[in-house]
Amino acid sequence: MYSVTVRDHFMIAHSFRGEVFGPAQRLHGATYVVDVEFRRQHLDTDGIVVDIGRATEVLRAVLAGLSYRNLDDETEFKERNTTTEFLARVVFDRVAAAIARGELGAGAREVESVRVTLRESHVAAGSFDGPLRK
Amino acid sequence: MYSVTVRDHFMIAHSFRGEVFGPAQRLHGATYVVDVEFRRQHLDTDGIVVDIGRATEVLRAVLAGLSYRNLDDETEFKERNTTTEFLARVVFDRVAAAIARGELGAGAREVESVRVTLRESHVAAGSFDGPLRK
Amino acid sequence: MYSVTVRDHFMIAHSFRGEVFGPAQRLHGATYVVDVEFRRQHLDTDGIVVDIGRATEVLRAVLAGLSYRNLDDETEFKERNTTTEFLARVVFDRVAAAIARGELGAGAREVESVRVTLRESHVAAGSFDGPLRK
Amino acid sequence: MYSVTVRDHFMIAHSFRGEVFGPAQRLHGATYVVDVEFRRQHLDTDGIVVDIGRATEVLRAVLAGLSYRNLDDETEFKERNTTTEFLARVVFDRVAAAIARGELGAGAREVESVRVTLRESHVAAGSFDGPLRK
Amino acid sequence: MYSVTVRDHFMIAHSFRGEVFGPAQRLHGATYVVDVEFRRQHLDTDGIVVDIGRATEVLRAVLAGLSYRNLDDETEFKERNTTTEFLARVVFDRVAAAIARGELGAGAREVESVRVTLRESHVAAGSFDGPLRK
Amino acid sequence: MYSVTVRDHFMIAHSFRGEVFGPAQRLHGATYVVDVEFRRQHLDTDGIVVDIGRATEVLRAVLAGLSYRNLDDETEFKERNTTTEFLARVVFDRVAAAIARGELGAGAREVESVRVTLRESHVAAGSFDGPLRK
Repeated sequence: MYSVTVRDHFMIAHSFRGEVFGPAQRLHGATYVVDVEFRRQHLDTDGIVVDIGRATEVLRAVLAGLSYRNLDDETEFKERNTTTEFLARVVFDRVAAAIARGELGAGAREVESVRVTLRESHVAAGSFDGPLRK
Repeated sequence: MYSVTVRDHFMIAHSFRGEVFGPAQRLHGATYVVDVEFRRQHLDTDGIVVDIGRATEVLRAVLAGLSYRNLDDETEFKERNTTTEFLARVVFDRVAAAIARGELGAGAREVESVRVTLRESHVAAGSFDGPLRK
Repeated sequence: MYSVTVRDHFMIAHSFRGEVFGPAQRLHGATYVVDVEFRRQHLDTDGIVVDIGRATEVLRAVLAGLSYRNLDDETEFKERNTTTEFLARVVFDRVAAAIARGELGAGAREVESVRVTLRESHVAAGSFDGPLRK
Repeated sequence: MYSVTVRDHFMIAHSFRGEVFGPAQRLHGATYVVDVEFRRQHLDTDGIVVDIGRATEVLRAVLAGLSYRNLDDETEFKERNTTTEFLARVVFDRVAAAIARGELGAGAREVESVRVTLRESHVAAGSFDGPLRK
Repeated sequence: MYSVTVRDHFMIAHSFRGEVFGPAQRLHGATYVVDVEFRRQHLDTDGIVVDIGRATEVLRAVLAGLSYRNLDDETEFKERNTTTEFLARVVFDRVAAAIARGELGAGAREVESVRVTLRESHVAAGSFDGPLRK
Repeated sequence: MYSVTVRDHFMIAHSFRGEVFGPAQRLHGATYVVDVEFRRQHLDTDGIVVDIGRATEVLRAVLAGLSYRNLDDETEFKERNTTTEFLARVVFDRVAAAIARGELGAGAREVESVRVTLRESHVAAGSFDGPLRK
């Protein structure tokens, strides 16, 4: 299995509901450094999984839709705890949709699975890893 | 598959037996920077895999049982080479036992598999990755 | 010159005022990974600059006073942009005060200068570096 | 599953053919920081997956066959784009051949799969992950 | 002293002349991960050293003038070894010129010194650190 | 000021005397990832501070004299706490001696100062920084 991984980041405010979160129930924030890994069984005729430049642009566009926001105010996330692992899934779904729309090129539709990792600090991270629906 | 990863470290002395180890047959030591990844198929009702704060505390407790010791003197490791990959398994077993005892919360019993990685330097690491017995 | 550096992190929400900040004028947040470097000309009789364990505790206490907060709501920071470099100075002042109060041990009063670096992402950081007033 | 990972790097010049590559169609170059992960189900009688020292030497030898070259001039790569993911496969094949020749020791033939990751910058990487043919 | 640091990278081909360089006398290449640190005594009225967003854009523009090139073909570098430390100076001079032209904003002319570090691998780096001429 | 930095590591056992060290009074160990930065005002005629390859070899030789040892048994360190910052000075002195003996080449005698940093974990480091005596 071949893969290509690109990295970018986004910065948000949010709060969590539930006693398990302790002081993180207060409004606070985070920088998430995001790695998106694209995987496929065979390289395309250019010798690539996806174009790294194009993947970087798609990731930047996806993260621009999240960054510099208070996620508590986003309708889409109402009633949800926007934890690191939850946000990894959000990024996964948006990257998958961009692939389906052809934004990474026609060849990128051969991508079989994607792993999204969000590092919230030097000591903690969350991820979502799944197949792409064809 | 969702995952959460937490990081901590421990520092030990030990020596290895076997010609393959060369100068590492002498008493020496290591810092191990430890990443523990917890994985499960679905998030719990709080939107998490495990609570990052609680996972960090469990990992700290597990590593406190190893750190600042000469592993050559530990009865449990007599006749064993405490290599990086062997110690990754030791940490795995102790984290798995903590989950089974409910120390990460009742919900953490839904964790399906765990990966433990020990980085012994900027150029070498060992790991153990396995399912949790239910 | 000898030095010792310890690392920890904190997570906050805030917003900036001023057109130069663009989208960061909206309420958002950040994780800051903090390195504090303590410097002195000579080691003490134990052979240390400061005790790494004690320095880690002092840093944790300082960052607990900032973390999991919306800095826009803190009286102390009213009318100020809590930029990365500004917060580096805040951490510097609080660490310097802890040293002056003897919280790092009597010997730590020999520390001559301190550098505080806050990494806000994998691609940006701010710092404050200065002498300690005796 | 146990694993051991070792790291080294190589530095090459090359160019790509295909419009998707944009300015990378010009002759340029890269440093690749290479991680090779060796995996097996059980440790050998020494308590290891492979000897880290020996694995480091094998990786150094493999990369010496690529480093400080213009890959456009290598007969083996004529008509191929030597992308990061393509080169990950090249390193995989050469490491697999070294294992098959016994260069990591007789026990290393128990290695079941290998993952090779090439980091081309702080924001992009490529990898190849596959089983070893027995 | 306050500082702000931003990071980006560039990828080039080149060769060196001189026996000391050994195999690096052959045409090869490198990825340079570049950190540029801007320093000044006092923050401006916005509470910043320089705007991180603007500094990132200036660095990107400077590196675009170097990246995806064979430096052996650049008239400017004829008869020079484009070593890591030499290139750190080149980036320094171009960033300094951009500041002098006002591209980081009028306030950035208060920047007193700049440090440029180029990491060529996980084990080697070069830098240039100097005052800005007023 | 120009600089070049090279990285390597060593692994040792030791114990500390003094209550401040808590559990580190027991025999334990550490991996130290070592960065040595060489600085000089002007580049030599090859365009370098020191040759990175040669500096790497000198550092490897210096660290081989420390690695895979129990420092408590080394006559040279009797009655001393081999703390991170103390060992940074030891490495500094040995690198300085190698430069004085010409092991980095005649030109390297122009090196004006050296900084040695030892990272003992992902959250702690010690360093020594000083001029070279001519």
